[in-house]
Amino acid sequence: MTRFFVSPEQLAQNFLVLTGENAAHAKVLRLQNGEEVLVCDGAGNECVCTVSDVSPGQISLVVKSRQLSASEAKVRASIYMAFSKGDKLEHVIQKATELGAAEIVAFPSNRCVSRPDEKSLAKKLERWQKIAASAAEQSGRGVIPQVLAVDSYKAALERASKADKAILFYENEKATTLRMALEADSFTSISLLTGPEGGLEEKEVEQAKNTGLQICTLGSRILRCETAPLCALSAVMYATGEF
Amino acid sequence: MTRFFVSPEQLAQNFLVLTGENAAHAKVLRLQNGEEVLVCDGAGNECVCTVSDVSPGQISLVVKSRQLSASEAKVRASIYMAFSKGDKLEHVIQKATELGAAEIVAFPSNRCVSRPDEKSLAKKLERWQKIAASAAEQSGRGVIPQVLAVDSYKAALERASKADKAILFYENEKATTLRMALEADSFTSISLLTGPEGGLEEKEVEQAKNTGLQICTLGSRILRCETAPLCALSAVMYATGEF
Repeated sequence: MTRFFVSPEQLAQNFLVLTGENAAHAKVLRLQNGEEVLVCDGAGNECVCTVSDVSPGQISLVVKSRQLSASEAKVRASIYMAFSKGDKLEHVIQKATELGAAEIVAFPSNRCVSRPDEKSLAKKLERWQKIAASAAEQSGRGVIPQVLAVDSYKAALERASKADKAILFYENEKATTLRMALEADSFTSISLLTGPEGGLEEKEVEQAKNTGLQICTLGSRILRCETAPLCALSAVMYATGEF
Repeated sequence: MTRFFVSPEQLAQNFLVLTGENAAHAKVLRLQNGEEVLVCDGAGNECVCTVSDVSPGQISLVVKSRQLSASEAKVRASIYMAFSKGDKLEHVIQKATELGAAEIVAFPSNRCVSRPDEKSLAKKLERWQKIAASAAEQSGRGVIPQVLAVDSYKAALERASKADKAILFYENEKATTLRMALEADSFTSISLLTGPEGGLEEKEVEQAKNTGLQICTLGSRILRCETAPLCALSAVMYATGEF
């Protein structure tokens, strides 16, 4: 069923009107009277609706039934990714949304080559949030992940450490596997941190350890900075019984 | 340690000479006499070598020790991906190589929009193999995955079914999880099949079942055709104790 996102206020009504981008999307799909669509508030609430009228630029819907989204992951996974070059963060935002991440947090670290200034960051965040919304729609998510940026590595560590489990992946860690970290005890929220192209510095890894993060390996192959978070997230989703 | 790939014949010698692209790469890295490098035959054999001479276009090496690659996955995973639009196959070849795949096999299916003709396929395969080689080098693989194409869906199923386990991922499968399929019995080789942008047809899924493949879900979120194989491969690597 086609999925549209509206505001929680709109979703509370019994008669909805799709306008703007939603109406444009409905036009492309040639929605007809009587067809059913799914309307979500992006926070986990959904309505099955019937199309009651199709006019240029506006589609009227009648709410048929309400439900909680069934496509959200049981565990709240937060992806913390260091600022990186090119469109790597965009790639990770799109894929992490498909894979079920709850949020994606960008952070600076010493070896980050690319670190946007305040003005360009505001623009980027707006763009990134749109990528998350579009990926949520396409993958059938009931929640649009939040995309945010913190302004220091320290702030990232402190925020990440508030989850039940917080793991930093480091290519020089050989002993502790992700499996060991996941199987040690139960959890309902998890933070997964990965470094930039040039990797994290040893003292940054120490700092993470001191903030309460566990340091884990992702295996004996060196993963690119855009591959590591998605590999870790896929493994966490598998380990927590999503598939 | 920097990694170079040469032919098995070259690796058998005690004195090696890097030429062509390898020499160009060595120049970029400003390799000096006395430095150590790793030379691999792409089939799992490696030599630690010392640079003995740096001349324009040719670097001479002395073999110091020989070893088997320690970065290869315990399970031989084959990725079968339907032909897809744009550079999605290239993306999957690069990432699957990092993640430890043994081979990547492209195949046609009914809903494939893009299916290269024989001439352009030969060119593509050459290009794809280079992408795998470059990703193998960067990720520290000892083996360069083979990239190949089969000319029918039937041929893909038959080839895939020869592994200890062969799994096809289908978005309409709800009951059988990847975990159920992996934990049923032990295996040392596995085939992972995923469909094109438009998905596989129901009769194609039936055909896979009849060829002995297991049909599994990758969870309740719809993954793009380039996300699904990498999610499945990450989960298999996790499940088989790689990290």
